[in-house]
Amino acid sequence: MKTLLLKKEEVRSLLKIEAVIASVEEGYKAYSAGKTIQPQIVSIELPEQNGEMDIKAGYSCNTRMISVKCASGFYDNQEKGTFPNSMSTVLLFNGDTGFPVCIMDGSLITGIRTGAAGAVSARLLARKDSKTAAVIGTGEQARMQILALKAVMDIKRVRIFGRSHEKMEAYQKEMSAQTDCHIELCATPEEAVKYADIIITTTPSKSPIVKQEWVRPGTHIIAVGADMEGKQELEATLFQNARIVVDHTDQCITRGETQNPLRFGLIEETDIDCEIGQILLDSKKGRTNDQEITIFDMTGMAVQDNITATEIYERALAFQIGTYHDFME
Amino acid sequence: MKTLLLKKEEVRSLLKIEAVIASVEEGYKAYSAGKTIQPQIVSIELPEQNGEMDIKAGYSCNTRMISVKCASGFYDNQEKGTFPNSMSTVLLFNGDTGFPVCIMDGSLITGIRTGAAGAVSARLLARKDSKTAAVIGTGEQARMQILALKAVMDIKRVRIFGRSHEKMEAYQKEMSAQTDCHIELCATPEEAVKYADIIITTTPSKSPIVKQEWVRPGTHIIAVGADMEGKQELEATLFQNARIVVDHTDQCITRGETQNPLRFGLIEETDIDCEIGQILLDSKKGRTNDQEITIFDMTGMAVQDNITATEIYERALAFQIGTYHDFME
Repeated sequence: MKTLLLKKEEVRSLLKIEAVIASVEEGYKAYSAGKTIQPQIVSIELPEQNGEMDIKAGYSCNTRMISVKCASGFYDNQEKGTFPNSMSTVLLFNGDTGFPVCIMDGSLITGIRTGAAGAVSARLLARKDSKTAAVIGTGEQARMQILALKAVMDIKRVRIFGRSHEKMEAYQKEMSAQTDCHIELCATPEEAVKYADIIITTTPSKSPIVKQEWVRPGTHIIAVGADMEGKQELEATLFQNARIVVDHTDQCITRGETQNPLRFGLIEETDIDCEIGQILLDSKKGRTNDQEITIFDMTGMAVQDNITATEIYERALAFQIGTYHDFME
Repeated sequence: MKTLLLKKEEVRSLLKIEAVIASVEEGYKAYSAGKTIQPQIVSIELPEQNGEMDIKAGYSCNTRMISVKCASGFYDNQEKGTFPNSMSTVLLFNGDTGFPVCIMDGSLITGIRTGAAGAVSARLLARKDSKTAAVIGTGEQARMQILALKAVMDIKRVRIFGRSHEKMEAYQKEMSAQTDCHIELCATPEEAVKYADIIITTTPSKSPIVKQEWVRPGTHIIAVGADMEGKQELEATLFQNARIVVDHTDQCITRGETQNPLRFGLIEETDIDCEIGQILLDSKKGRTNDQEITIFDMTGMAVQDNITATEIYERALAFQIGTYHDFME
């Protein structure tokens, strides 16, 4: 019995944003229906090397696969020139036998499934007539969120704010080529978000960037950046007049954007309206009117990697892509 | 940059028991010197499939490698005929960059490093003139412990007890061929341990098999089997008159043989003499006289996998064994 090996470019050729959006929805539903096992995340931190390794393992009753994602961040790599800062390996084990069916480069998976998660939230919570997205940050997620959003909504304008004008220009060039959106560079975050229908925050900031007074009624906010203790992109008072939807309550309370209004005592845990999987399962409603401000706080889940990687594996089998290796002979 | 892939038979060709014993010693020393990072073990349990997956991750300052071992146990596999019950995959990541340098079949590693751990304890704690080993159980560790022990001591007789006569006979046949030991089958555990210099318990038992009154002064006991809550192979009172050495205090207290005398209130945590790494670092003594009974309780550590796998990887490089795969192109 052989293990399928998939390289980065093979994974890229198999990734279809529409399929990943469907996988992420399936993952959220499976989680909210209690059909997943997701142990705590294991982290090995190596401050001397300015590096870390996170291991996210999970099982899904739908895929019947155990997934293990080993994702590293070594933040001096790029400067040294040999490796990218972030690398990732995903292993899939058959959940009926434990056999390792597939080992794939996982560099693209986290990025695309995180983008897809934002799109899922926009489909459920943004106004149907949304045309303008504001993006804070100019990195990978600033791109991925828009590419995914375009698959579910007819976004025409992207107003981008980042601290580096050079990076904003690079973003404009790339995204103008990849989408039909009009990309507008903004000098301040206020300029970016003031007329937006959807606001997407994608920075590693530790202090608020988006102020409450700039956000119009009817706006949907996708809070991507905050994923560990101490991170914050939104003014905490924004949560007081918004409908709060999270991907995973426990994680968002401790590591997501939601940690901040909770810590400041501005909201209580019971002010979190629901998990997004509950909306997908129809036990909670999506957007209910054109005036409410909605916030989707996401921290990422192993089951998203699990279902996305399984979908890639199955497509690789169907298209006969990849290399086989027999580890057990 | 390419990742080295090692198959089971390639790993076997690179495994030398003497080298693994040295690796295990290095691992114990590194752990007791505070030169390792070993996060908690992650387990995914799938009772419906009679299966489980354990993920042991660790970092060693000596090897500068991050290791991740994914070890599965699906206990109906063998009956179904396609896969062994236990399978294992070990990944090694460079601790300065996060790059996955090696992915190897790990099936043999746990077995051999566990055998080596017993041998390390015997070298430090058994009487130098030990000639007779008693083995309870007839499985993989019943074999591995003796093969490793033979590398450090001149054992002449092995007295084996298992519940299946057939399995005892198979053991006798195999081990007579692989060693120069006289293998003697015993009808009761008492018969096996009564005249032993070293007692090795290797079963998944949940009630005591070895009674205190059968154990002679000067005996060294290697407690291999107990590795999770509820397991027990030794009569708990044995601990009251023995010198207790563990591999990892926290693990042994909760999952090792030591859990039992503690739970029954027969000993306190302070009655644990030391961790074996402390003896190897010369901060504690090995055997001090011919009369004391010593117990080595082992539960296994990520750093043992880390150092053993790194040693295999380095030998593979030196001997140009294995296949390279570029996951990142």
